[in-house]
Amino acid sequence: MSEAKTSTTPNTFKLVRNQGVTAPLGFKAAGIAAGIKASGKPDLALVFNEGPHYAAAGVFTRNKVRAAPVLWSEQVLGDGHLRAVILNSGGANACTGPGGFQDTHATAEKVAEALSHWGTETGAGEVAVCSTGLIGDRLPMDKVLAGVTEIVHEMGGGLTGGTDAAHAIMTTDTVPKEAALHHGGGWNVGGMAKGAGMMAPSLATMLVVLTTDVHATPEQLDQALRYATGYTFDRLDVDGATSTNDTVLLLSSGASEKTCTQEELNAAVREVCDDLAAQLQGDAEGVTKRILITVTGAVSEEEALIGARAIARDSLVKTALFGSDPNWGRVMAAIGIAPIELVHDKLTVSFNGQPIAEHGCGVPGARDVDLSGPEIDVTVDLGLGRGTATIRTTDLSHAYVEENSAYSS
Amino acid sequence: MSEAKTSTTPNTFKLVRNQGVTAPLGFKAAGIAAGIKASGKPDLALVFNEGPHYAAAGVFTRNKVRAAPVLWSEQVLGDGHLRAVILNSGGANACTGPGGFQDTHATAEKVAEALSHWGTETGAGEVAVCSTGLIGDRLPMDKVLAGVTEIVHEMGGGLTGGTDAAHAIMTTDTVPKEAALHHGGGWNVGGMAKGAGMMAPSLATMLVVLTTDVHATPEQLDQALRYATGYTFDRLDVDGATSTNDTVLLLSSGASEKTCTQEELNAAVREVCDDLAAQLQGDAEGVTKRILITVTGAVSEEEALIGARAIARDSLVKTALFGSDPNWGRVMAAIGIAPIELVHDKLTVSFNGQPIAEHGCGVPGARDVDLSGPEIDVTVDLGLGRGTATIRTTDLSHAYVEENSAYSS
Repeated sequence: MSEAKTSTTPNTFKLVRNQGVTAPLGFKAAGIAAGIKASGKPDLALVFNEGPHYAAAGVFTRNKVRAAPVLWSEQVLGDGHLRAVILNSGGANACTGPGGFQDTHATAEKVAEALSHWGTETGAGEVAVCSTGLIGDRLPMDKVLAGVTEIVHEMGGGLTGGTDAAHAIMTTDTVPKEAALHHGGGWNVGGMAKGAGMMAPSLATMLVVLTTDVHATPEQLDQALRYATGYTFDRLDVDGATSTNDTVLLLSSGASEKTCTQEELNAAVREVCDDLAAQLQGDAEGVTKRILITVTGAVSEEEALIGARAIARDSLVKTALFGSDPNWGRVMAAIGIAPIELVHDKLTVSFNGQPIAEHGCGVPGARDVDLSGPEIDVTVDLGLGRGTATIRTTDLSHAYVEENSAYSS
Repeated sequence: MSEAKTSTTPNTFKLVRNQGVTAPLGFKAAGIAAGIKASGKPDLALVFNEGPHYAAAGVFTRNKVRAAPVLWSEQVLGDGHLRAVILNSGGANACTGPGGFQDTHATAEKVAEALSHWGTETGAGEVAVCSTGLIGDRLPMDKVLAGVTEIVHEMGGGLTGGTDAAHAIMTTDTVPKEAALHHGGGWNVGGMAKGAGMMAPSLATMLVVLTTDVHATPEQLDQALRYATGYTFDRLDVDGATSTNDTVLLLSSGASEKTCTQEELNAAVREVCDDLAAQLQGDAEGVTKRILITVTGAVSEEEALIGARAIARDSLVKTALFGSDPNWGRVMAAIGIAPIELVHDKLTVSFNGQPIAEHGCGVPGARDVDLSGPEIDVTVDLGLGRGTATIRTTDLSHAYVEENSAYSS
């Protein structure tokens, strides 16, 4: 990418939610019901890069127990190129051994074969695979492979295909999640996400596919993706759990024939990821409150992040906020056990911008603050330095317990 | 303690639950309703060491936000001696600033004055203070101080006083917790505990007082206490939270005129702590399942402990077990993110002794195991080394959410 081709238009953009992976030029997508889910709901999605370029990057779960599709997709991304992503809900294909890995491989082969049959010569090594659902069961491969043939046939242009794909990757999600950014420089970024629980430290979301029509190298995409996920999905923490299947992919078609600076790409991908992360938070399992935990005044950003995450994961804080209870002592207890530098007497806690505790002690009226609304800001200032970080989380509700105590059965 | 005085009787013992801190010779206790709790329930307890010796040791919360009574008690234990412990429920006296510390000091002064008035010359520096309840409010000191005068007057001999004390320290506990060990060597260890939530990593319990009539030095008591708590309260993890007030004290009167080896003392204190920890687990907030998480085959005991704790804190595992759902994939996902050495293909997971997954994959019938009973054993073998550790925990139930969303209000 030469400097000469860099866009010189103002760095303006427009973000919309009713468009997703097919908002950028050069992408087609589809979503169908292949019969993988017993419910008969959509369960197979395809995102296809028509080119002319095929650069791609990915970030994957840090869990040491990795599902077959994670192992596969990481491997095929080794050369920084992808033609397509096939995604299924209805089964995670995790903890399924060598047989499960063969299933993933066979799915990619089938996608490549079907695409080749329709005129796009493709190899299995150009097809990433993502799966989500219950851990431990083999996929019904007859249905998956028949579904692949059908979905390649169904694949259409336009925005509808992207929305169909976003529907087909849902598990306990109640709504599909899409976002698209139209950049003033004449290029676009789109994305879809699924995930409503098991959102945590490394990657908050189970599956995200991002697309762009800006012309970028795999290295540029990789840098933008790591930057963006570090500030968005990595800072969404619903229950501290991290899936075996978490995957975020970014594909570039170059079809806009535009380029941009690394900073522009970073910012645009971050905007889309941030919006998708907010949608994931809003639709998290059993959520009744959308909560932002901010730690300021830490000795470093890293320590602020550790502190914010400790509060976000504290079951006593989360149940109190479910009850709209300004029990700030639980925030104090939670930050106090975080492995970071802090001094009790310097702590300030605020709820929704109102200081509740100063110098480590409650202030008059601290228990009267109104937390009955659906959004709660909790800010803890450590009074030590300039490190600041925010974690998105949710409350711990009856609905969370209900949903998660009856998932596999 | 000379070797010559060491007991040579068989190392046998009897453990009972209907006796507590007054089971050993040389201790008196009492519990009264002083009006600190709005409910009018018992809220003030006293444990008094009649001597002839006054050695003592304590371990305290590792939370960096420490309640006034923790700061006080740690300070007065500096010389390894205590005459009395005064405990209140109905208020934690945490995050209450210098005024809160003065309240703790005044309480200890009042205890010393009242004991001196009744013939036992005592200084405030010989009186430990423990508090439990809501964080952030000052205690009603008029009621606390009047209660101190009354409780010293009420203090009786016999076992009843110990049980009254165990009642008076309860908060959301539904039953008092007591245990006593009668050693074949002619000496005894007794204890009481309270705590039904906020039980976690450093110290699982909010307040525990242990007594013994064996003659031991402060150093011997300290060693026994650290050994015992490390294997018991430190391995009880209900919700990952750690209180600002956690305190475990061990007092020795020497009234049996017996001594013992360090190993005998360690073992006896561990037995009592282990039984109290089991009682705390059984009465934890909203518990419907008592769960033991064991990790075996780790490269070290420390790594086994980290792994077991990671599973014990996983909300998705805990909700599944609440639903009696053998969703072993969640156990896999939870151990997979623990910061320890592990290899997916070597993992074995068992529920109630029945292997559910081997070599990282499910076995036939894995989803049919019956987890409907009140006790569940989860064992994960890493297949790497000899490190083994067990964590006691509970399920995550509707009752937990209910109880913790309506605590301060």
